[in-house]
Order: sequence, then structure tokens, then C-alpha cells
Amino acid sequence: MMFTLIHQDKTSKARLGKLAVAHGEINTPCFMPVGTQGTVKALSPQELENSGAQIILSNAYHLFLRPGLEVIKKAGGLHNFMSWQKPILTDSGGYQIFSLALLRKVSDEGVSFQSHFDGLKHFFTPQDVISIQQDLGSDIVMPLDECVHYPCAKDQAEVAMKRTIDWARRSKKALGSQFSVFGGHRTPDTEHRELLFGIVQGATYEDLRKTCAERLIEIGFDGYAIGGVSVGEPQNLRYNIAEFVSRLLPQESPRYLMGVGTPEDLLEAAGTGIDMFDCVVPTRYGRNGTAFTSIGKLTVRNALFSQDYKPLDPSCDCYACRNFSRAYLRHLFNTEEILGLRLVSLHNIYFYLQLMQKVREAIRQDRFMAFKKEFLSNYNKEG
Amino acid sequence: MMFTLIHQDKTSKARLGKLAVAHGEINTPCFMPVGTQGTVKALSPQELENSGAQIILSNAYHLFLRPGLEVIKKAGGLHNFMSWQKPILTDSGGYQIFSLALLRKVSDEGVSFQSHFDGLKHFFTPQDVISIQQDLGSDIVMPLDECVHYPCAKDQAEVAMKRTIDWARRSKKALGSQFSVFGGHRTPDTEHRELLFGIVQGATYEDLRKTCAERLIEIGFDGYAIGGVSVGEPQNLRYNIAEFVSRLLPQESPRYLMGVGTPEDLLEAAGTGIDMFDCVVPTRYGRNGTAFTSIGKLTVRNALFSQDYKPLDPSCDCYACRNFSRAYLRHLFNTEEILGLRLVSLHNIYFYLQLMQKVREAIRQDRFMAFKKEFLSNYNKEG
Repeated sequence: MMFTLIHQDKTSKARLGKLAVAHGEINTPCFMPVGTQGTVKALSPQELENSGAQIILSNAYHLFLRPGLEVIKKAGGLHNFMSWQKPILTDSGGYQIFSLALLRKVSDEGVSFQSHFDGLKHFFTPQDVISIQQDLGSDIVMPLDECVHYPCAKDQAEVAMKRTIDWARRSKKALGSQFSVFGGHRTPDTEHRELLFGIVQGATYEDLRKTCAERLIEIGFDGYAIGGVSVGEPQNLRYNIAEFVSRLLPQESPRYLMGVGTPEDLLEAAGTGIDMFDCVVPTRYGRNGTAFTSIGKLTVRNALFSQDYKPLDPSCDCYACRNFSRAYLRHLFNTEEILGLRLVSLHNIYFYLQLMQKVREAIRQDRFMAFKKEFLSNYNKEG
Repeated sequence: MMFTLIHQDKTSKARLGKLAVAHGEINTPCFMPVGTQGTVKALSPQELENSGAQIILSNAYHLFLRPGLEVIKKAGGLHNFMSWQKPILTDSGGYQIFSLALLRKVSDEGVSFQSHFDGLKHFFTPQDVISIQQDLGSDIVMPLDECVHYPCAKDQAEVAMKRTIDWARRSKKALGSQFSVFGGHRTPDTEHRELLFGIVQGATYEDLRKTCAERLIEIGFDGYAIGGVSVGEPQNLRYNIAEFVSRLLPQESPRYLMGVGTPEDLLEAAGTGIDMFDCVVPTRYGRNGTAFTSIGKLTVRNALFSQDYKPLDPSCDCYACRNFSRAYLRHLFNTEEILGLRLVSLHNIYFYLQLMQKVREAIRQDRFMAFKKEFLSNYNKEG
């Protein structure tokens, strides 16, 4: 089985699992650092591996535009190109097409748009997007979906949701047909093909979310993602959607909450049975000089730290915390030195990955809720 | 002895030596990566150490302004502050005061100036500058000197040169007196005190250079630096000064050519008996996407490399060359990803340090001139 449910926490719906993909196994719940353009911003693959990253996320839309598929195919795929031999999940870029690209036009057939950086016109069918991700050599492939903004009128959300289901069906067919027709270079062993997840859309409407989940389950996917969250909705609405959809999804499949989130978000959603997360927050905040620590967020530039020789987080043993003080990091940010954003990005990724490690340990010991409470109590102490 | 001459090359004036300072031994000829603001730009101390850096250079002027001396003193000195436990040479900042600072006014007593970033007024005597570097905990201290631009009228160069000698004398006295009067926390063991170098100025005038060198030798310093080069003069003039001054300096003392240079410069000057170098070129070029390789400089953004899967330098075994292709690095620069400038900076520093390693090996084998010829023949092949 590509997904194995190892243990169900007795104090919550949180679950411990293992997901096997072509480039290795992933212990869940897991956090996937985001490497949109084929690099997790400011970090090297070696640093990611040393930080305990099991899988990273990249983005088909961005890589299709730059450096282009030919460049990556000829490198032997994205893993070789970026020198990362562990699993990669690629997002289809649906979200980017709907947020970054210019002059987009959606039809049932697909989406036309202009590149956000050079204005060139492109047209993607759902089949194209699968093919792109196969060219990248992705371990986990996401189908093209239609994303809506928050708030979104129900009729519009419904159209997008239905189109997302239709596109998901065509994506599965495309993967299947390519698998049989063009599969000469790929192995028929299911453990070594890419996995395809279905994406549940439906904005904040429970009935739309329910319909979408049910249809996708009928079609059948290797895992299920909850899309259309972290698009500006209030936190409690985000938690409600995650919990509501999570309940509808099959126990035996991995569940992925897309684009989420803060440490609090991760704990909340893991408690509803979510297995996978990705978010730009740890690296983006890192570049801006905000560190996540066991006692809350810390703004490195704060004058309070000018002579504070403690590490960012005294309970952390990442490279940054083992070697550098808040005073030094503050100096690096004040003088706009690259090492500053490197170190805080590194710390934040380490913090996120350690958090998930602790979540897994807590589930194994049937004490997820106690762990969550304890973590949040410390985390909010100085928040 | 703090400087030991190990071997004199039989084919040139190049020499192999060992310099012992408080934080360790340095094999010479050596290159010192530049960490002006307490960080070698874009690199971590771990990466520097893995690249074979034996000593780095930092800058008293910059660190005095930001983060300020108190911050570094309370950290236990610059080594602790930046987490670098190998030797550090600090430049006095004379060059920066004369190139960066605003409204400077020089008198025999010292120099007044306004900070280049916040406009605050400061006044430095030569004694102050020694005291600052002692507070930093520097292994090798440089006296305040008066730097002139190129070209410079002879009378002006002479005034600056004489002032430089006077300031050097006062710097030595300041170090000596502090050593005896305030030296309670420092050991009287000469191997564990900071070294003080004299800086030979005199612009492009041989007679001024000669006078300066002779006076400084009379005063007596732990080593001698050649300043006022790499200030815009033609390459052959730079080589002439280096060679001319190098000949005047005592055999038994280390010789440091400040702010130099390109790989060609380093070889040329090492052949005249220079032992130490520093330059921002490898990191500055690295950030701009120019790599130094065994077959010449390479512009990473060049469209030629869009599908070139060779490493930057196939004969290099740095982390960048072992793991990444030119095509990937080009992609990182095109998409303005920080990892790109990190990797090319890392490669360039590694390349420089390896070059010096090869220089030392060639001297040991009495084949410096053959090595130099061979290196330049490859280096200029595609230049």
C-alpha cells in the first residue's frame, strides 16, 4: 500500500501514517517546505535534508515558464535538476494561474493566460498539466483546479467546483492513458509511478465541499487535498472547512491541506486528521526577519535584542541556534547581510519540521491533545 | 617565532610560510575572504571552514558603526559574535574612511568624519583605532593609515605617507602601552597577543614607497602590508609596486598585499614574495553571477548555459560543483533566487582557497613558475 495508517491518536482525530512514493517514504503528518521555482528560498538541499525535510513542494506553472520543461527534462527531471533526491510534490499551478497570471480565460476545456513575467500566451488543458508534472518527474501530481477568491458567491463557487471535478476526472484519465500508452520508460509497479491527488474545492459552502469530496472519491484518487483555503478567509472558517472536509475523506487515503499554515494552523488541522501541509510562511517570514520559536514569534530587528546573546530559540538545536545569537542575527538584518535571512529561514524550516516530528511522536503516544495544549501554552506565552 | 619561513621557491621569489596568531596557524601564501560587516557575504562560517579558509578579514570602521563595539565586546569579541574561531585580521577602516565616510577632515592628530549611513560624527586617533581592534579581539591589527586616490600628486602622496608612518608609530606605542598597562586580561605570551602590521603607502612613487618601507622597518612591526593598491591604477603599475615594495621588506616577516585581487594578480604577487591577500572579488562576482573557473571566468546568466549540465568548473569539487549544473545556476540567477548567489559565492571562495593551496604545493616542490604558467594557460584559454 502506498499509504499506511500506523496509528490513530486516542485523544483526537490526528493520525500517524506513512506514504510511500517513488523517491522514498514520508512519515505523516508532514510539512512540505515550498520550493516554487525549484529551490526552497535561501536554503540548500543539504540544509533541507539536515533539517529533516522528507518531501518538498514545487510548482508546475512556475517551472513551465522558467526555466521551461525542456531544460528540466534534459537534466533528467526536477530531482536531478535541483539536486534533491527525496520526494517532490508538484502543485499544478492552478492557484498561480488564478492569482498571478494575466488575462486568464477559463473554459471547460482549460485555461488560457499570459505569463506573469513576460506576457507570453499559454493554454493549459488538465491533460497538459499532468503531462508537465510527469516531465518534471514529480512523485505526487496535483490536477489543474479552478480556484476562487474569498469571499465568493455560491453560484460562482459551484461552477468552479464542478469544473474542478471534471478536470480531475480528465487528469486521472490522462495519467492512466499515458501510463499505458507512453509508459515505456516507466515501471508498471504502482509503487514507482507518480501519485495523483484529487482537490476538494467549494469555497466556504459545506454542501459544495461535500458534493465535491463525494464525486472525487467516486472517481478515486491516491490522496485528497483540500484546496481553496488560506485565501483570505477568517481562521475559524479555515478550521471549519478543514475539519468538515477531513471527516468526509476516506480513512485509508492521505489528506493534504493546501497552503496551510502557521504553527497553530498545523496543530489545529492535524487534530482533524490532516496528514500533509505546505506553506511559504516559514521561509517568507524568515526572509523578513521573523522567527518562529517555542515561545512565539520573534522579530529579529527588535531593538530589545541588540545585546541579547541567547539563540533565537534556546530549546532549538538547528545550526542557527547552535551558533548565533539574537544580537548577531539582528546585526545581520540591520546591515542587510544575506546570512541573516538564510539563518532565520533555516531556523524556521527546522522549527516547522521539528514541530511535525513532535506531533508524530505525540500521536504515537496517544497524547496529541495534551501536546497541542502544552505547545500552544508556551507558544502564546510571549505572543 | 610567529612567522616561519618554510621554503623558498627556487624558480621565483615565492615563499612558503606559516604564521602563528592567537586563534591558530595560517599557511602562507594565503587568501583571506572578506567579511567586512562580520560576515563573509552570503556564506556561513561552516561553509568557509569547509572551503579551507584559514583566516578571514573584517573591518573596524564598519563594525564600530554597526553593531557598535559594546555589542561585540559583550559577546566576548568578534570571534564569538560571528561564530568563527579561526584567525581574524581586522582592517583599520582607513580605506573606508577615505572612500565611504562623509565630510572627513584629516589632521596629524587623526581623522574626523561622518558615518556613511547615519551621518553621525566621529573622530578617530590612531590610538582609538588600535583600541577598537583590541576590543574586537582581532588576531592581526592594522594601524590607521591615510589612503590617497589614483592618480595622486606627489606632494599630496608624500604628506599622506609621512602621516601614515607617524600614525603607525603611535599605533605601535598604543598597542604596547595597552599591552603593559591594561593587559590584565591578556597574556604576556607574545604568541597570544594580537600582531600589528605596518602599512607601506606612497602611491605609485617608488622613492616614497622606499622611504615609507624603511621607516616602518626601523620602527619594527610583526608584518608589513602594501596599501594603496587596487585603487584604480593599471595592472602593470600594481604589479610593479608590489614587486618593488616586496623586495624592500624583511625576509623574516609576513607580507600582505591589501585588497588584491584577481587570480592573475594573486599569482603575479605571490611570485614576488607576497604572503597574504584579501579581496572582495570572489564574493562580489559571485553575487553578480560571475564564476572563476580553471578555464577562466564564466557568466552564469549566459544563454549558452541554458542547457549546459556540466558543473561550473568540472575540475572543482566544491559543494556547488558536486551538486549543481550551469543550467540550474543560470535558472536560479534568472529567477533571482538567493541560492544562486550563495552557490557561486561559495564556488568562488573555494576556487580562490584551492588556488592558494596549489600555490603552496607548487612552492614546496620548487615549481611555482611552471605552475603559474600552466594555470594561466588554462585560465586564459576561454577568457
